[in-house]
Amino acid sequence: MAKNVAVVGATGAVGTDMLRVLEERQFPVRSLRLFASARSVGKTLRFRGQEYPVEELTENSFKGIDIALFSAGAERSRQFAPTAVKAGAVVVDNSSAFRLERHVPLVVPEVNAHRIREHQGIIANPNCSTIIMVVPLWPLHQVARITRIVVSTYQAVSGTGARAIEELRIQTRQILDGQPIHPEVYPYQIAFNLLPHIGNFLPNGYTQEEMKLVNETRKIMEDDSIQVTATTVRVPVFRAHSEAVNLRTHKKLTVPQVREILRRAPGVKVVDDVTCNRYPMPIEASGQGDILVGRIREDASQENGIDLWISGDQLLKGAALNAVQIAEYLL
Amino acid sequence: MAKNVAVVGATGAVGTDMLRVLEERQFPVRSLRLFASARSVGKTLRFRGQEYPVEELTENSFKGIDIALFSAGAERSRQFAPTAVKAGAVVVDNSSAFRLERHVPLVVPEVNAHRIREHQGIIANPNCSTIIMVVPLWPLHQVARITRIVVSTYQAVSGTGARAIEELRIQTRQILDGQPIHPEVYPYQIAFNLLPHIGNFLPNGYTQEEMKLVNETRKIMEDDSIQVTATTVRVPVFRAHSEAVNLRTHKKLTVPQVREILRRAPGVKVVDDVTCNRYPMPIEASGQGDILVGRIREDASQENGIDLWISGDQLLKGAALNAVQIAEYLL
Repeated sequence: MAKNVAVVGATGAVGTDMLRVLEERQFPVRSLRLFASARSVGKTLRFRGQEYPVEELTENSFKGIDIALFSAGAERSRQFAPTAVKAGAVVVDNSSAFRLERHVPLVVPEVNAHRIREHQGIIANPNCSTIIMVVPLWPLHQVARITRIVVSTYQAVSGTGARAIEELRIQTRQILDGQPIHPEVYPYQIAFNLLPHIGNFLPNGYTQEEMKLVNETRKIMEDDSIQVTATTVRVPVFRAHSEAVNLRTHKKLTVPQVREILRRAPGVKVVDDVTCNRYPMPIEASGQGDILVGRIREDASQENGIDLWISGDQLLKGAALNAVQIAEYLL
Repeated sequence: MAKNVAVVGATGAVGTDMLRVLEERQFPVRSLRLFASARSVGKTLRFRGQEYPVEELTENSFKGIDIALFSAGAERSRQFAPTAVKAGAVVVDNSSAFRLERHVPLVVPEVNAHRIREHQGIIANPNCSTIIMVVPLWPLHQVARITRIVVSTYQAVSGTGARAIEELRIQTRQILDGQPIHPEVYPYQIAFNLLPHIGNFLPNGYTQEEMKLVNETRKIMEDDSIQVTATTVRVPVFRAHSEAVNLRTHKKLTVPQVREILRRAPGVKVVDDVTCNRYPMPIEASGQGDILVGRIREDASQENGIDLWISGDQLLKGAALNAVQIAEYLL
């Protein structure tokens, strides 16, 4: 049952977490190959106590590979995922390249694991903000049918990658020291600032990231009638995204009902006891596979409304863990 | 026309900005007295090139005072504002103590300056998040009648006061240096973290800060039919609050209409050209009297919906500037 596994983008923030998750979940790896861009070739990465060389990705990289976990950006996926499939591998792709293609399953295992078996070589891993949102929303949707979602995100720099994490660290110190800063990864200062700008801007005024929350949510929950609007914002947090979510449901839900549904939901941890100042925070969500949900309230502004506050590790459940969970279904 | 002015809470984050705003706007100050808690007595503060002593607040502090600007917390206001009124002063109170009292005008001059003359000694300055939101929403409400608001806030530590600003600074450096931290002002780490907790929690699950956005918005805009829900979140930003605002209006507004209305609105600056990465950010709003509005979009999730992203200096328009503007109407 052990598989020959390739990780594409192995040196990135998500790639390194993929190795960690494969190890922690004791994924049956027979052989492992690590691919990254030319500038990382020569490096080695540790997996189960052994050093593995980082190789350059080529057309011949996927010979004998069973499962290829891609996290090297949409362009790289578009170029090499079909090659991997032709070589006989199943690709779990963390990029946006194929997510909305009709014959590509877009999977969050807690929601629609049954779609995995329909794959034609590629299974798409959704956008991190979307995964973090749909894990707790899906069980509510099943009980009460969600009709509209207004979501504002508070996204960590880990979502941009390893260089962004470093930029936040360096820039923060420069500002504290009164030194000049030199933004490279982001268009403006991210330390002690907010950027309402994730992904490119589209003609309708939304960003790509915002439209992912609209479109991927509908595809994963298999309900195009769900109305979604989103404002996505980068915040000076290292890892774990948070989201303020306002829901309207077809059937009324009370707060105790929401808590009870979420307590039984896979992948969710209810952290909601304001009498003891217990609520989700990114520093608490970091390193956890579960999505933390709290601040559960009946919306004062509409019938059948619920407000939630969510934090989830963007690199784990938002990316690496979800991809490895999908791979586990392929075993 | 010059007035005898007292500033209560003069050494706080808002108090020091009040002095700066009085100076910059050349408020006609005949005499100035500065009050603070006992531990600040002995300090001096500079105003128009002169040093003024900080005095302890007593029942006799307000003799001869015409205008008293209070920003020392609700308890202090409850105790001393009536004393000041009895002594003949008009109080502009920045605390929450009197805001929802029926006979106390709650004023944002761009919205309801006409209420100032109805005062019976006390005029309340609204909550900072509410001021920042209603300045741009009011002109839209006049044209299209806002029926529902979903707002998620991204609030700077300046809203908590001078000690919180210092806590963010010190704690951030401790974390970068790998040292242990000791939260004092906030219940948890604020550096590189988010706290969905501003003000105390209420029985309905909302915080006080969230209910201020609900109740004060209705009182200022004089329309109890406006439905509001809010999630308020503290972010590691030094000053200037930001807000993701989703609106439903009775009459449909297009994006060009919203831009045109806001361009002519007093106290608002439209910063909305995503083709050049221009959008409001707290570091840009800091130090400005205007509220910055951008990311103006037609809401993809409902008819007659608009999404906005707002940043405004919490200490200036959110507090000190608004209070001084009110005082100017008293001249």
